[in-house]
Amino acid sequence: MTPATQFNIDGLINSLAGIEIIQERSQLVKLSQDYHSFSPILVSQLAGKVGDIAVRPINQTEVLKVAAACARYKIPVTVRGAGTGNYGQCVPRHGGVILDMTAMQNICWVKLGVARVEAGVKLAALDKKARSIGWEMRMTPSTYRTATIGGFVAGGSGGIGSIQYGLMGDRGNLLALQVVTLEEEPRVIELRGDDVQKVNHAWGINGIITEVEIPLGAAYPWAELIVTFDKFMMGARFGQALASSDGIIKKEISIFADPIGQYFTALREYIPEGKQAVFLMIAESSLELLPGLIKQFDGEITYQKAAQDAEKGLRLAEYTWNHTTLHARTADSSITYLQSIFPADNLQTIEHMYHHFGDEVMMHLEFIRARGAVGALYNRRTSQRDYALSRRTWGIYCKSSQL
Amino acid sequence: MTPATQFNIDGLINSLAGIEIIQERSQLVKLSQDYHSFSPILVSQLAGKVGDIAVRPINQTEVLKVAAACARYKIPVTVRGAGTGNYGQCVPRHGGVILDMTAMQNICWVKLGVARVEAGVKLAALDKKARSIGWEMRMTPSTYRTATIGGFVAGGSGGIGSIQYGLMGDRGNLLALQVVTLEEEPRVIELRGDDVQKVNHAWGINGIITEVEIPLGAAYPWAELIVTFDKFMMGARFGQALASSDGIIKKEISIFADPIGQYFTALREYIPEGKQAVFLMIAESSLELLPGLIKQFDGEITYQKAAQDAEKGLRLAEYTWNHTTLHARTADSSITYLQSIFPADNLQTIEHMYHHFGDEVMMHLEFIRARGAVGALYNRRTSQRDYALSRRTWGIYCKSSQL
Repeated sequence: MTPATQFNIDGLINSLAGIEIIQERSQLVKLSQDYHSFSPILVSQLAGKVGDIAVRPINQTEVLKVAAACARYKIPVTVRGAGTGNYGQCVPRHGGVILDMTAMQNICWVKLGVARVEAGVKLAALDKKARSIGWEMRMTPSTYRTATIGGFVAGGSGGIGSIQYGLMGDRGNLLALQVVTLEEEPRVIELRGDDVQKVNHAWGINGIITEVEIPLGAAYPWAELIVTFDKFMMGARFGQALASSDGIIKKEISIFADPIGQYFTALREYIPEGKQAVFLMIAESSLELLPGLIKQFDGEITYQKAAQDAEKGLRLAEYTWNHTTLHARTADSSITYLQSIFPADNLQTIEHMYHHFGDEVMMHLEFIRARGAVGALYNRRTSQRDYALSRRTWGIYCKSSQL
Repeated sequence: MTPATQFNIDGLINSLAGIEIIQERSQLVKLSQDYHSFSPILVSQLAGKVGDIAVRPINQTEVLKVAAACARYKIPVTVRGAGTGNYGQCVPRHGGVILDMTAMQNICWVKLGVARVEAGVKLAALDKKARSIGWEMRMTPSTYRTATIGGFVAGGSGGIGSIQYGLMGDRGNLLALQVVTLEEEPRVIELRGDDVQKVNHAWGINGIITEVEIPLGAAYPWAELIVTFDKFMMGARFGQALASSDGIIKKEISIFADPIGQYFTALREYIPEGKQAVFLMIAESSLELLPGLIKQFDGEITYQKAAQDAEKGLRLAEYTWNHTTLHARTADSSITYLQSIFPADNLQTIEHMYHHFGDEVMMHLEFIRARGAVGALYNRRTSQRDYALSRRTWGIYCKSSQL
């Protein structure tokens, strides 16, 4: 049963001649979702929220028409990319229009160190284009195959690469945003430099991002490795030591406490039961330095893929960040997570938490750079209850999710 | 008058047929020097130290012959590159042989992210070659136009680029060293990975470095800027804020307290009297973010050169690190300097020192990355006396020289 709507959807449709419109119920239900299903709290709070209509513009002109019509008819707009976020940002809480930006896939230009793209461009597509001239996305979420750049800017924050470049919100990681305002006579606003922060990570609620200008990083050939440890804290200390080795170029350091690795079906042969797993992406020119460091912490390399092979097949990046949760939930949908930010003495705090929660919580650390220093974001996982252990101090972040 | 030598130089010469030998006194005096003349202490301690003979091999075979002969005749060997160091490492304290490595200029190969070169290759030559395929030296001293890679490894420690990659001694910044031993039957030893630390920064006293394998960094187009501030601590705080901005790609952050800038004759028009000067090398893709940050600290850009123009003519890098001292001493040879390493709360300590020493000392900060964090190495300059304010704590360095 389609619930009655309070909005003048027919009037809206008449204003949008030539623009792709979706009204089929099952599609609308799908376009009203994201991955907030990871959260037992959000699932109940956002249950049954479905848009009345979805609109899929192919260029800025069409976005302007949609914005004008929605303002005129006072219909709420929920902007979405691929809907890979975990926090309900794509759920139309008050119904109305779902503005699906995924058809705007034009890569305007890619030059030395900078790219300009439409909001619906997939991160993997931009990355591929950039790599063809020796550059790459500085950071991507684990959902880079499907996620859009507009969605990442509006709803993401960092990811694979953040150990080198920090988070998307850090000064310099976003150069410009083109935004359409939600007014009867919508304006196109170009926000540049520090002004991008007015719209960055605002979930699309204060402007429709139509184009993004983003700095690129130098493309290194990234080898992928799995290193296992008997003890969790040895893996964590190894991660911190590697993160702090300024001469070793790295893109990803992920620490998974036992038994998280057992959820990674395709990789189980490389992660013996009872072992802590560390996933790495390291520049090939830095690989030679790794064994010495691993030895210091009694670790063992169980998997290694050269950069040229890493382009194909299974990629470790897709087991990191919130894909970790995705893989775990495939096996056990009762699992959830909580992100935490921890103080600068994070290894001690993490060790304390690790022992304090024991079996109830599975630790997952993501190392990032923040305010000029490296530290661990950390994810605690539990199927039982939520803990809010968030605290932030100078330069060190930890992020915690709970299964 | 040539002083009598205790060594069998004639015997040595007979063993080295076909190898370039220098015996002319004025050349020997020159080849027995480096820039330890910056130090009033070393000048008196090393006065009159001259080698008996200099030998300039062109390849490893010749180095092996020299090493064998020197071992056989028990003649001390002082290895040198261009002699740009400041600490007397190239002075033959006990006479004997000066082993001049500058003729070994073969670039063995440069590939994606790694280069292998003979020890006498000039840093600028390697950098130029690397940049032709999109890479560059990760770090260079301010003497990069003349300094050799072997000399940099043996006697240097970091420089322009260390804000991004840390110091040469940090794991990963040096991949391999080929070393010839000083024995009657000399061996050629290839040190790889962590083993390079056995010879790295050992001034050539435990092996003759013949080849160096070094990782490269991605070559960004570097713009050069001078920013001036009314107050020194505003410049220092700006430097720390920029150093901590992980999304802004930078290669050099140098802070010069007034009146250091007045010693930079060619740049004086950009540094008004009484102003504190900050010299920057910033990736062009990060330039747009700079004005906002500068404004926060009441700074003003007085000089800006695009990357393509920066390749030509005057280069700011040649006013930083110990070239600062060189420029100051051109005006006043009584000036000397002292390097210090400071604790993590370095801005407070620096502020304290700045006020404590007043006019007697001119502060010069160099920001670098160390153990995963950024901070300032700092140089205090005085013409009066030396201060030893060296202390080191987690992740933050300061270096101080005194004029």
